[in-house]
Amino acid sequence: MAGKAVIKKVKTQARAVEKSVLAGGKPTLRFPVRSLANVRYDSKKGHFAIKSGKKERTLTVATVKSFAQTLKMMAFSKELIEVDDIATKREAYYVSKNWGEARFREQPESDTVMDDVEALFGVNREQLGFIPEEKGGDIAGSLVVVDRDPDTGKQLRIDCTKFGSGAYSIPNSVEHLGFETKATFILAIETAGMFQRLVKHGYWRKANCILISMGGVPTRACRRFIRRLADEKKLPVYVFVDGDPYGITNIYRTLKVGSGNAAHLNEFFCVPQAHFLGITPKDIIDYELPTHPLKEVDIKRAKDALKNDPFVQHYKQWQRALQQMIDMGVRAEQQALAKHGLNYVIDEYLPRKLAKPEQFLP
Amino acid sequence: MAGKAVIKKVKTQARAVEKSVLAGGKPTLRFPVRSLANVRYDSKKGHFAIKSGKKERTLTVATVKSFAQTLKMMAFSKELIEVDDIATKREAYYVSKNWGEARFREQPESDTVMDDVEALFGVNREQLGFIPEEKGGDIAGSLVVVDRDPDTGKQLRIDCTKFGSGAYSIPNSVEHLGFETKATFILAIETAGMFQRLVKHGYWRKANCILISMGGVPTRACRRFIRRLADEKKLPVYVFVDGDPYGITNIYRTLKVGSGNAAHLNEFFCVPQAHFLGITPKDIIDYELPTHPLKEVDIKRAKDALKNDPFVQHYKQWQRALQQMIDMGVRAEQQALAKHGLNYVIDEYLPRKLAKPEQFLP
Repeated sequence: MAGKAVIKKVKTQARAVEKSVLAGGKPTLRFPVRSLANVRYDSKKGHFAIKSGKKERTLTVATVKSFAQTLKMMAFSKELIEVDDIATKREAYYVSKNWGEARFREQPESDTVMDDVEALFGVNREQLGFIPEEKGGDIAGSLVVVDRDPDTGKQLRIDCTKFGSGAYSIPNSVEHLGFETKATFILAIETAGMFQRLVKHGYWRKANCILISMGGVPTRACRRFIRRLADEKKLPVYVFVDGDPYGITNIYRTLKVGSGNAAHLNEFFCVPQAHFLGITPKDIIDYELPTHPLKEVDIKRAKDALKNDPFVQHYKQWQRALQQMIDMGVRAEQQALAKHGLNYVIDEYLPRKLAKPEQFLP
Repeated sequence: MAGKAVIKKVKTQARAVEKSVLAGGKPTLRFPVRSLANVRYDSKKGHFAIKSGKKERTLTVATVKSFAQTLKMMAFSKELIEVDDIATKREAYYVSKNWGEARFREQPESDTVMDDVEALFGVNREQLGFIPEEKGGDIAGSLVVVDRDPDTGKQLRIDCTKFGSGAYSIPNSVEHLGFETKATFILAIETAGMFQRLVKHGYWRKANCILISMGGVPTRACRRFIRRLADEKKLPVYVFVDGDPYGITNIYRTLKVGSGNAAHLNEFFCVPQAHFLGITPKDIIDYELPTHPLKEVDIKRAKDALKNDPFVQHYKQWQRALQQMIDMGVRAEQQALAKHGLNYVIDEYLPRKLAKPEQFLP
């Protein structure tokens, strides 16, 4: 959604409140309930979706402060879009120190109101001018990112084949970026070390792909970047992480379908076109990988996923894979392939896996 | 040190061992002791320096395995340099799985041997072909990084003014990079959010500087990058972090003089030309910043530094600043400046501070 459309939504909402007040009524704002209980797995759209539960905030003596804070936050967002500026959650909290009686005492209060406003308008925070605190996500390979110079507004074409051993670092907000590519897939990688190996050996050129280093669980900006790129260029996303319950249920699951406690956002941040390249429990056997025993926390995580995760419950293949891992009692890191030589991953493993993408886990 | 010089060192060491063995003797390797007890603060060089304590590893029945592992690790490093490849600590561990009886059982064992080899040759790991697992550190501003295409070997000039809202991401190893710049200083920033604000508003153009996002405590690659850039281009480094004991004693102190448990490396990773721009305890008063109370852990950290940190003990100014913070009982985040408006940091705070760099804390 463009900035103008968001401003229009803010104005419509604000006018309704104004009208109600002028008529001597009690204005009401209706927010989607943000909790796991109000979530279902939408297998068609491919992400956790929010159900229809709403909570109301009506202007009364008891709610006057939070009501005012919500309106101030909406006005602040409108201002950010109008002047083309950005603010982090932290900054928004400090800005509120000048809101008189409506100022927040602690940042968690302002974070909650920001989440409410985000859900109220059905847009993601970045579209409201609010950006995450943290950066994350590096790119190398056959991709030109189209941005503009913040000062001059002139278009910039950022060629991710030209960074040598370095990479392009994804900005905190990616809504405005455009893409040009002839790559045939995106390879999203868990560790910076593996990413650096593939960059060092120009793997993206051999395989005609785009490499993305997630650095563990991907940040919002990284997930949104992958989603927008995959959507616009109709590219499959292959995910290459450690073969352990953390890599599967935390990194991969979050990237693909989103997370439970941010269900009103998964629509924007999930990557339904993601598939799991490896390391699978089967890889551990097929490639005779050195392993580590599963830790207590690994076993708990896998069992929890089998029992409670709507995504795992939807896919028999994932139930079998997680159960196989529990039965084997071991995990394997993606670097374990180095047992067969440092570049076995490039010369053997990735080509063999990529020859049969239909066998990737869903 | 160039790769050739490292290979020569490895060969010299290996020949000495060979000679001793052939003569029927017991070959010995002498490593610097890597511990706080073998460290002093060298105020002239500006970093923690290792003292002359050595430990010996003589080939006996009891030491034969660790002796062999050390030699294998040296040979592996030599091979990496010769074929121009890289390996992370994790990868080195897995490669050892093919060393027969000399293989490591757990990664901490191979990490220790790698640290020994590093100390033995008096070079940093990156010069031995070993790279860190983690990435970190983003750059925007008046800087051209000179790298080469990993495939073709062709020179690449990476212009950090051309990344729009994004940034250049520092590779895991930076030994081979060159620099071109007309900037007058480097601004190293704690949080990605603040970095993004300065990038968004083209601050580096106004101030003619290079912006570096550290994302908390800087990684090895980030520290080494700043050090090499500052050395080669004779640039001062100004550090802009949260005004709390963590920002001062963890982020800033580590960047400037290194850390205690890696004293054999500080020579390469410290940035003696760093100075502390803010947030200082005095800033909290001068700029009437909103604060948070110091937490238990903050107070403990500050008191520990006053009592045990050779760097703090060397500088009266730091003792006074930390004591002042303890007395005030509060800390302030760098985003607290947003109380005066989102861009007060750009329009007022940074220009006022940068007008008097001689007042920066040492």
